[in-house]
Amino acid sequence: MSNLTMEKLTALCKGRGFIFAGSEIYGGLANTWDYGPLGCELISNVKKAWWQKFVTEPENNYGVDCAILMNSSVWEASGHIGGFSDPLMDCKECKTRHRADQLAEDFIRRKKLDTNLTGWTDLQLSGFISEKAIPCPVCGKSNFTAIKKFNLMFKTFQGVTEDSANIVYMRPETAQGIFVNFQNIQRTTRAKIPFGVGQVGKCFRNEITPGNFIFRTREFEQMEMEFFCKPGTDLEWFEYWKSYCRDWLYGLGIKQENLRLRDHAKEELSHYSKATTDFEFLFPFGWGELWGIADRTDYDLTCHQTKSGKSMEYTDPVTNEKYVPYCVEPSLGVGRMALALLSNAYEEEIVDGETRVVLKLHPFIAPYKAAILPLQKNPELIEKAERLYKQLSKKFNCTFDGAGSIGKRYRRQDEIGTPYCITIDFDTLTDGAATVRDRDNMTQVRLPLDKIAEYVLKSLEY
Amino acid sequence: MSNLTMEKLTALCKGRGFIFAGSEIYGGLANTWDYGPLGCELISNVKKAWWQKFVTEPENNYGVDCAILMNSSVWEASGHIGGFSDPLMDCKECKTRHRADQLAEDFIRRKKLDTNLTGWTDLQLSGFISEKAIPCPVCGKSNFTAIKKFNLMFKTFQGVTEDSANIVYMRPETAQGIFVNFQNIQRTTRAKIPFGVGQVGKCFRNEITPGNFIFRTREFEQMEMEFFCKPGTDLEWFEYWKSYCRDWLYGLGIKQENLRLRDHAKEELSHYSKATTDFEFLFPFGWGELWGIADRTDYDLTCHQTKSGKSMEYTDPVTNEKYVPYCVEPSLGVGRMALALLSNAYEEEIVDGETRVVLKLHPFIAPYKAAILPLQKNPELIEKAERLYKQLSKKFNCTFDGAGSIGKRYRRQDEIGTPYCITIDFDTLTDGAATVRDRDNMTQVRLPLDKIAEYVLKSLEY
Ligand SMILES: [Zn+2]
Ligand SMILES: [Zn+2]
Repeated sequence: MSNLTMEKLTALCKGRGFIFAGSEIYGGLANTWDYGPLGCELISNVKKAWWQKFVTEPENNYGVDCAILMNSSVWEASGHIGGFSDPLMDCKECKTRHRADQLAEDFIRRKKLDTNLTGWTDLQLSGFISEKAIPCPVCGKSNFTAIKKFNLMFKTFQGVTEDSANIVYMRPETAQGIFVNFQNIQRTTRAKIPFGVGQVGKCFRNEITPGNFIFRTREFEQMEMEFFCKPGTDLEWFEYWKSYCRDWLYGLGIKQENLRLRDHAKEELSHYSKATTDFEFLFPFGWGELWGIADRTDYDLTCHQTKSGKSMEYTDPVTNEKYVPYCVEPSLGVGRMALALLSNAYEEEIVDGETRVVLKLHPFIAPYKAAILPLQKNPELIEKAERLYKQLSKKFNCTFDGAGSIGKRYRRQDEIGTPYCITIDFDTLTDGAATVRDRDNMTQVRLPLDKIAEYVLKSLEY
Repeated sequence: MSNLTMEKLTALCKGRGFIFAGSEIYGGLANTWDYGPLGCELISNVKKAWWQKFVTEPENNYGVDCAILMNSSVWEASGHIGGFSDPLMDCKECKTRHRADQLAEDFIRRKKLDTNLTGWTDLQLSGFISEKAIPCPVCGKSNFTAIKKFNLMFKTFQGVTEDSANIVYMRPETAQGIFVNFQNIQRTTRAKIPFGVGQVGKCFRNEITPGNFIFRTREFEQMEMEFFCKPGTDLEWFEYWKSYCRDWLYGLGIKQENLRLRDHAKEELSHYSKATTDFEFLFPFGWGELWGIADRTDYDLTCHQTKSGKSMEYTDPVTNEKYVPYCVEPSLGVGRMALALLSNAYEEEIVDGETRVVLKLHPFIAPYKAAILPLQKNPELIEKAERLYKQLSKKFNCTFDGAGSIGKRYRRQDEIGTPYCITIDFDTLTDGAATVRDRDNMTQVRLPLDKIAEYVLKSLEY
């Protein structure tokens, strides 16, 4: 990740087809992004890797895929309608809008104060801002309106008329789809506590200040798991999943020096949480939150039980004990994970006096697992290469590149993280073998064509 | 599919964890659905099967994953803001709202008239309704308001204020994300025409009358491919993809008698389309559209070129000829495909005087590929079974069922379409083999434990 800046990474992503600005031909749409041919394979691999280890392999974990549009009662119960909001103030001088908490935090950091804002009311916050005469970042004056709360949920109208009865919200998180289906899931799977339920899907938050490329976007995809357990065993499971998540990151090649775990102090915890740990990653712009893991107790299920009048209790099949389960939640964003993996994989090396840019992505994550390269534009070589493409593409994603010098083609594949370059040369026509070049150490082995699939598949394990 | 009604299918889906009503504990939200543990694996397999054959395997096809929220100019250019609307009328007597075209079509069908509504203006439509005194389906009177157009796009506001400058729409189709990125995709892949671009993702249409379970929902997922080709070759490619799509359906086990292809007559075609074919499937409620394939000419790219001022031309690398590519679009809904596969797979058989319900899903589509069943609650058997689960679940999705008589457990797996039941019995402890039962013909083979993965994987090919 040496020398990697956000500018460099964004340029690579745009130039090679990982990520384009959304609606680009129309001047874009504030911080929306489209995943191009490589990016969409990358994030699809991220989601597959997560699903495999958090849903498929654990014997007692299950998946769901719930609607983005949910009954508004869900968001009343969860507290999102009442409480999920940013404290905003307008600058009376230049008419720009700002988040009060960010103004105050930036000021505290700049002045190296040790004031802690945790738990402050809006009144305390605006008092602090006017007392310290914290300036507007746009015009430099300090003359703000009172704080107004701004709900982060996108709202729309379902049905024909735009009246309040028809308001629906676009979900700001995937977790609630799991909670409201707790009984449906338990009943149909007959799962015994402890068990987990995972979901991957789009969420929407009307952030005032999205930014840092795909780090914070209004539209994003979450990979969430709710692990339901018996009260009293929750802290044990919290530790279990914390280690499990960390090992998953290491297994995909995240470097130890790029990751740090930060346990929340007592006064930082949400009122319903017994423990929370942030996984922070060293992005090119600095340390940022990658993964949040929280012991949410029985808070969510109890809220829904109260609001809906439907029991969220579980009956222990052996002891007949009844209880509302506790819940441990690891919650990870797909875009953030992709950004971490790309940053983590980026290397520049000097090879023969030239800079080689290489994405050392884990083969499971790499968009293409293999590039098939006929050495020359010779019909026999091309035919052999195309036959190999047909065979391998039934097993994993491949690319075919027939143009340019072989060295240039290697570099192109290095830059997009393709772990293996398979060159079909004239010897192939007689020995039925090809040269397989390794992206990371640039060594080459000669393998029979019918052994290549197995060789590549082996490298995908993690 | 004998005897299958929508009621039966819905009950199975709900009872076994395929599909739950969305936000059910709060009384639901009009025709939203949540995919439960089995349903979410099923639709994930549908999407994988599509991606594999429409993106991964074709050498010159690529994928993208674009934002749901797009700049409103996209929808102005595509005609969705101007034209994407339903003609609605209110009944003045009972104050209910109806789609004028549906009222007229239902009337024509009931009366067996041969009137064809294609191309009618709203004035012609409302003239016809009042002339024929078509009754309101709710109160039976015929006293309607004039037709009002109702746009099908969900709208929301991005940013802090709810003014028209901040309106954004939730995409009603995935196709436009591909069109607006045409140059980005071509540039970064250096793909030569003809090439295809696929996308899978959520779309939203504020339908007045959603219904028939997951057949028509306001929130749905599309699998779309745009195949860009040289003008003049488009009808050839249209035929090519039509056959390809049909073969894909057959390959996944869709029965010939459940599928029919209906070519649109000239007067039925959209003004920009040279050819359109509907794939219709025999759902439990009757024939319904499953897949639409259209030759859309250069309509979409030209609209965006005009509106954005950005060239959508492609330059032939050999002849240097410049042209806006033509485009063939097969567009399939994930939910509809899932409904078709479930209906198509449902069988009731009499076995030993009892009804066996079995979902004869293609193994690739089945939520679980194998169920691992220790014959008895014996610690040694359970340990062996769990070890096998660990091994197999690294390769495909498995379930573990240790409770109830073996016959009952077979029936449970039949009903959810699990192709193989693997029973660990006392012989396993000495011979290292297990009994593998086939879902469809109920025959059993005995296989060494270390051969089972390969046996199951083989069946997933299609
Ligand atoms: Zn200002
Ligand atoms: Zn009426």
